[in-house]
Amino acid sequence: MPADKPRQIRLGLFMQGAGHHVSGWRHPQAEFGGENLGLIQRIANTAEQGLFDMLFLADGLASAADMHPSFVVRIEPIALLSALAMSTKHLGLAATASTTYGEPYHVARAFASVDHLSGGRAAWNAVTTSYARSAANFTRGEHPSHDERYAIAEEFLDTVKGLWDSFADDAFPKDKESGVYVRGDRIHTLDHKGKYFSVKGPLNSSRPPQGHPIIIQAGSSLPGQKLAARTADAVFTAQQSLEESKAFCDSLSRLMAEEGRARHTLHVMPGFCPVVGATESEARAEFEKLQSGIDPVAALRLLSDRIGHELSGYNLDEPLPDLPESQALQSRAKLLTQMARRDNMTLRQLSNLVAGARGHRIVWGTPAQIADTMQEWFEAGAADGFNIMPPFFPTQFERFVESVVPELQKRGLFRTAYEGTTLRENLGLERPKNRFFEG
Amino acid sequence: MPADKPRQIRLGLFMQGAGHHVSGWRHPQAEFGGENLGLIQRIANTAEQGLFDMLFLADGLASAADMHPSFVVRIEPIALLSALAMSTKHLGLAATASTTYGEPYHVARAFASVDHLSGGRAAWNAVTTSYARSAANFTRGEHPSHDERYAIAEEFLDTVKGLWDSFADDAFPKDKESGVYVRGDRIHTLDHKGKYFSVKGPLNSSRPPQGHPIIIQAGSSLPGQKLAARTADAVFTAQQSLEESKAFCDSLSRLMAEEGRARHTLHVMPGFCPVVGATESEARAEFEKLQSGIDPVAALRLLSDRIGHELSGYNLDEPLPDLPESQALQSRAKLLTQMARRDNMTLRQLSNLVAGARGHRIVWGTPAQIADTMQEWFEAGAADGFNIMPPFFPTQFERFVESVVPELQKRGLFRTAYEGTTLRENLGLERPKNRFFEG
Repeated sequence: MPADKPRQIRLGLFMQGAGHHVSGWRHPQAEFGGENLGLIQRIANTAEQGLFDMLFLADGLASAADMHPSFVVRIEPIALLSALAMSTKHLGLAATASTTYGEPYHVARAFASVDHLSGGRAAWNAVTTSYARSAANFTRGEHPSHDERYAIAEEFLDTVKGLWDSFADDAFPKDKESGVYVRGDRIHTLDHKGKYFSVKGPLNSSRPPQGHPIIIQAGSSLPGQKLAARTADAVFTAQQSLEESKAFCDSLSRLMAEEGRARHTLHVMPGFCPVVGATESEARAEFEKLQSGIDPVAALRLLSDRIGHELSGYNLDEPLPDLPESQALQSRAKLLTQMARRDNMTLRQLSNLVAGARGHRIVWGTPAQIADTMQEWFEAGAADGFNIMPPFFPTQFERFVESVVPELQKRGLFRTAYEGTTLRENLGLERPKNRFFEG
Repeated sequence: MPADKPRQIRLGLFMQGAGHHVSGWRHPQAEFGGENLGLIQRIANTAEQGLFDMLFLADGLASAADMHPSFVVRIEPIALLSALAMSTKHLGLAATASTTYGEPYHVARAFASVDHLSGGRAAWNAVTTSYARSAANFTRGEHPSHDERYAIAEEFLDTVKGLWDSFADDAFPKDKESGVYVRGDRIHTLDHKGKYFSVKGPLNSSRPPQGHPIIIQAGSSLPGQKLAARTADAVFTAQQSLEESKAFCDSLSRLMAEEGRARHTLHVMPGFCPVVGATESEARAEFEKLQSGIDPVAALRLLSDRIGHELSGYNLDEPLPDLPESQALQSRAKLLTQMARRDNMTLRQLSNLVAGARGHRIVWGTPAQIADTMQEWFEAGAADGFNIMPPFFPTQFERFVESVVPELQKRGLFRTAYEGTTLRENLGLERPKNRFFEG
């Protein structure tokens, strides 16, 4: 980002078929369905009208009736992004893919393909897959420990980036006269042999339009932060308080400095669930309506998944019990445990909070009030942007785009037109050089 | 297919970025590029105007400068099909995915997703991956032997079909009032534990619109035929003579009878490379122009891949040397060896033939002549349809659609409108029952 340009808020839309609030789908205005392409296309268009940087898809590799309704069924993210690339023009297209249950060659290729299909709008959210349930769907067996998952992820990411550099930009003369379609001396064979992966290469994809698709990292534990500081362009994180989010950003800054990276080349985007009302009391009523639809069993199930321990045997009206450290989502478990202790929350209160946005921050208020809190975090260095998590679709998200976005624009905090044609350009990030070829 | 309906020719378009002929891309009218979405969309639209049953994508998991130009780079098939689903309405969308370098959960989900996105037009060409080069891109190491690849494929296919049946069609009441989004008693957990795979399930996809996406099988060895007879809806095969193709169909018929399946529930579609001219001499000149562009080194490389042995040390003007049996494409190697012996071909002649369509049949002639040979094979029971492999795109394919398709229609051999809305309906095949749920 050139120094003469004011820093601007980044916005992602965290798309989820049945909304983010566990009972959002029950709202009278809610439309839903993880496989409802028409609805998802409309929402993507709304995000693009709102000049959002990107649409973001989470993912999972398991299903069960007791999961969040948005998780039970969902279109495979690469397929869905490829479809959405056809009905959008500027919107970045981000999807989650696992480094624990994938292969570097497949992942490198999939995101290179979305980047080609979309003209440079692909982003990969590299996750280590926190839920052990997924392991049962893959023959590999045991779900690896938290630290081992991050060791695998480090090697996985380096391998993928190496594969993206397989071809020089001028590798394809395609000269009908001489018959030279591709130049062998402009192709690089990676020959990666590491602890977890052996991948020869080259990738069967020319270099993506963005050079490398945008890398997103979404784990907030120390190994997650280190991975982000070294390899990521954006970080999604769950943060409940400005102070903690600021401390998180500062920690990332220090780790980035150790890697020789400038802080402005990474965008930290906490999850943010806005419940927008025309008045404060309307917003509050909307929030309470959502909370009243919560099934306590479903909420406790969500909390159990986030904490990494089965909580169904405990009394809902007592405090969160003492639990050993989990191998699942470490940072989320810590965040929730700290919050419960600090605010003397009962298990019911904590699970109701998680039912709202799975540990992400929920803010209800008028457009100006919501813009206020976003501005406060942004200006305090607690966030570079936000991953917006509407409680349900489409009306709550439409309201955000129609009312909060103009408020941010009026304050000079958000773009009034897309700056470039690729996601990387819109994020103000440079196209990485090919490590094997000049130019 | 009801008995009162006359049997009709099935047509697939075998799409390949730089055409099928190894030097097709050098033709003055050729446009090309495995990553040229605009071109691929136009060609798909032409196929749909021509009422083709489906567009078919091959795939590979390796790249090198000495490969067929269509193989060096290509968009990942699930991404490409999902994009094409947005710009087509009736065309079936078939892609290749490996049972040797994939996971049943990923593959089941990917094709279910394309089926959802396309409203029931997905087809999976299940291949065992014949090229050992791919192994080097996946950590697993050694490329399994031919027979073991088929043993893996058998278990893989059964697992995928089981996963597609995870949800009853009525599993999702989505009742806002009662709060019941999904019914646990209408979800089936597969709990597959086999020799090669352990997959618990359920799949995180509702049952695909077609019940099961169409299954294509493309190996013609005996294990390939057995797999097809038990599990496939269509077979792609390389056949050079009517007699051999008829024998192949008869062999499949016998194997299907052993499985208790009626022959008309499987469509055998040999590859077919038509070089269409307004006159016979124009077609011949077009074919010779293509042949004259062949680079002998590239042609020998293609032949080596198909035969499964490195042939670069041999004299081009002598007969094909005696070679031990390969673990690669067994049926293709046999086909080519037999042909070379029977017709006393030199290595150069054989590699030039393979450069044309990789062992598939090439026919040059007027639209009527090309329709004649298709009709002859179809009526003799040597084919139920053809997988059309244009030597280059787009003009040679446009000519086929504009001239050969109407000729087939005039003879009552090909549809004049799509019969249904799903690929399965257009192919005259029934939606399979869910094995775990009624209705």
